[in-house]
Amino acid sequence: MIGKKKILIAQGGGPTVVINQSLVGVLEEAYKNNFDVIGSLNGVNGIINSKFLNLSKLSKPEQKLISNTPSAFLGSTRDKPDKKYCEEIFKVLEKNKITKFFYIGGNDSSDSLKIISEAAKTKNYNLQCIHIPKTIDNDLVLNDHTPGFGSAAKFVASAFAGINLDVKALPGIYIGVVMGRHAGFLTASSSLLKKNTMDGPHLVYLPEINFNIDSFLHDVHEFHRKLGRCVIAVSEGIKDKNNKLIANYLSKNLDKDAHGNVQLSGISSVGDFLVGNIKNKLRVNRVRSDTFGYLQRSFLGCSSEIDEKEAKELGRKAFLFSKKNNSSFSVCIKERQNFNTNYSISLGINKLSDVAGKTKLMSKKFINTKGNFTTKAFKNYAKPLIGKKFPNFITSL
Amino acid sequence: MIGKKKILIAQGGGPTVVINQSLVGVLEEAYKNNFDVIGSLNGVNGIINSKFLNLSKLSKPEQKLISNTPSAFLGSTRDKPDKKYCEEIFKVLEKNKITKFFYIGGNDSSDSLKIISEAAKTKNYNLQCIHIPKTIDNDLVLNDHTPGFGSAAKFVASAFAGINLDVKALPGIYIGVVMGRHAGFLTASSSLLKKNTMDGPHLVYLPEINFNIDSFLHDVHEFHRKLGRCVIAVSEGIKDKNNKLIANYLSKNLDKDAHGNVQLSGISSVGDFLVGNIKNKLRVNRVRSDTFGYLQRSFLGCSSEIDEKEAKELGRKAFLFSKKNNSSFSVCIKERQNFNTNYSISLGINKLSDVAGKTKLMSKKFINTKGNFTTKAFKNYAKPLIGKKFPNFITSL
Repeated sequence: MIGKKKILIAQGGGPTVVINQSLVGVLEEAYKNNFDVIGSLNGVNGIINSKFLNLSKLSKPEQKLISNTPSAFLGSTRDKPDKKYCEEIFKVLEKNKITKFFYIGGNDSSDSLKIISEAAKTKNYNLQCIHIPKTIDNDLVLNDHTPGFGSAAKFVASAFAGINLDVKALPGIYIGVVMGRHAGFLTASSSLLKKNTMDGPHLVYLPEINFNIDSFLHDVHEFHRKLGRCVIAVSEGIKDKNNKLIANYLSKNLDKDAHGNVQLSGISSVGDFLVGNIKNKLRVNRVRSDTFGYLQRSFLGCSSEIDEKEAKELGRKAFLFSKKNNSSFSVCIKERQNFNTNYSISLGINKLSDVAGKTKLMSKKFINTKGNFTTKAFKNYAKPLIGKKFPNFITSL
Repeated sequence: MIGKKKILIAQGGGPTVVINQSLVGVLEEAYKNNFDVIGSLNGVNGIINSKFLNLSKLSKPEQKLISNTPSAFLGSTRDKPDKKYCEEIFKVLEKNKITKFFYIGGNDSSDSLKIISEAAKTKNYNLQCIHIPKTIDNDLVLNDHTPGFGSAAKFVASAFAGINLDVKALPGIYIGVVMGRHAGFLTASSSLLKKNTMDGPHLVYLPEINFNIDSFLHDVHEFHRKLGRCVIAVSEGIKDKNNKLIANYLSKNLDKDAHGNVQLSGISSVGDFLVGNIKNKLRVNRVRSDTFGYLQRSFLGCSSEIDEKEAKELGRKAFLFSKKNNSSFSVCIKERQNFNTNYSISLGINKLSDVAGKTKLMSKKFINTKGNFTTKAFKNYAKPLIGKKFPNFITSL
């Protein structure tokens, strides 16, 4: 008797609140198709250390609980496999007779998967690598958007909707520093619940536009002069005209992960730097900054119902596509051609090498000509992704 | 013909997500009783500047919208009236024939109200001052708890429930710095959604307990050694054995408001200080801190349904009590005697002078003997206040 077919699944990179929806999506189809499922703990790291969890018999209520749980249920990793690491991986996969490996993650995880998949070919090992996108940064190429982004964008939009009202009640200048190493999608989402021009955020600074402190102070001064207040969204990844991170000037001890990414979260220097400049140069007293940090990607209860649904669907389709197709691929939400029509998406696949390690930045049409705010086109693009479950609120009578 | 009776209403201090529920509660009863309502913009500041809004004819849908809106709809202030300020207030109130003044606010606003009420007596001006409590700090004496706290506590509890899962997926040490100048209720709420002892937060540091950096490092090291991770909630108001704010050692330029309160929000020094100590002395690499800042008090969509209901009821009852009673008072949620029985509250009144400017700290029974975590008694006390609308989630199989 031949044993049941088996798949391996793992999660990599920064957590999101819907990454477990994709995990459960794969499980659902695997169960229907009578596959066993092994989970690797902490991404590729769990493979080389043979830290596996048998996921073949999760009950419906367990699946439901897991899909509602923020952050990576199987644990995550920042490991980036090199040749030696890949050889270790094959040994373990071969021993466990695994020929299908699903990896849920962002650009770095897709890059890991590409490296593994190429090394497998060289070794003539029959391994199908399937990448399921997730990233709150929304910076995967050839994807309209990525699971995880909609919920994180909902968090940032909700935060700024509240902050706008807070700063309106007790006027001052407020800076919210938002995640996003290279792409400004999440920072731009601060504007999604803005009702009218008097509401904040009044200014949005993105990594795609060179940051100039003098223009910044000028912009802030203008709003403060007119309204007596100013609410500002700033990406943690803002860069100067030489493309050097502002954060790099401020701290010599920034950590780097195995992918060479500077870890910007959990440091407050960008916010403090801007607050200091405003206080000293504009002579304004009530200036505050918050760095949103990890709350953006794991806050319990702030998920977009659209994002949840899509994350699960991507998991389901990743499994189904893997049955039709023997080669490695990255499942995707195909790019919409028009953001003015009713929202609908379709799923497809990309070659791993077309997606892996590449970074999508915000399109120019999403950024205003002054480079200090978003456009109507961005709102049309991103608003459907955060869902519709918001309290009705009012910003002026 | 005698004109309709008139009340004045204003909002003071830091915003909450339910402070407008109390406003609408007063409006509802005032309308039923055929009173006109004038709103003062930006608290007592709007009185001396005659910045008023006629609130006598808000439609039901407008009331609904306002009550769902976070932050003070009428604007707020940190002004603390002195004798001259009070005289200005009387002039305006007298001119507008106002004899009932409702002020929704925390300890400082109740203190302002006491000063106004005493000055009115001295002047023989017939003014009834009614204080309606709100504060996310939950630090009003003679109140079981205060509107605004339950929703802020829900935010902090939800944040830590997510952070626990985030740090479990990508292990390290995480510090969340929570609001609360003197009282630790909000920081303690970080533990309310903790499911088992392995879950974070693992440590909670409150302003009620003298902070010692060596004990802190020892505690963190123990958890990190055992679990490979540690999640910590720290109050922005932690003090050393001389009762001096740790934040005071770290920054020479802290702002103070008119009430003499050091403004701790929007500065990140406490978190950075602790991260620096852990990195240098425990030699751990992945250490992060976030300062939750304004998000705690104004985040759109994170409100406790219990808190909403109670805030509105306090507004309604404040109006009704003011009809039965001609003297000034502070409406309150009476202190529960037993936290183990089914949750229910009853409302009453306190003398303004018994509440004004006083600060309630956490009871010793809410803090463990080591002074680094909360107790079961705290959970019994605070859990009902955050409501029941949470996703079902799982922290381990």
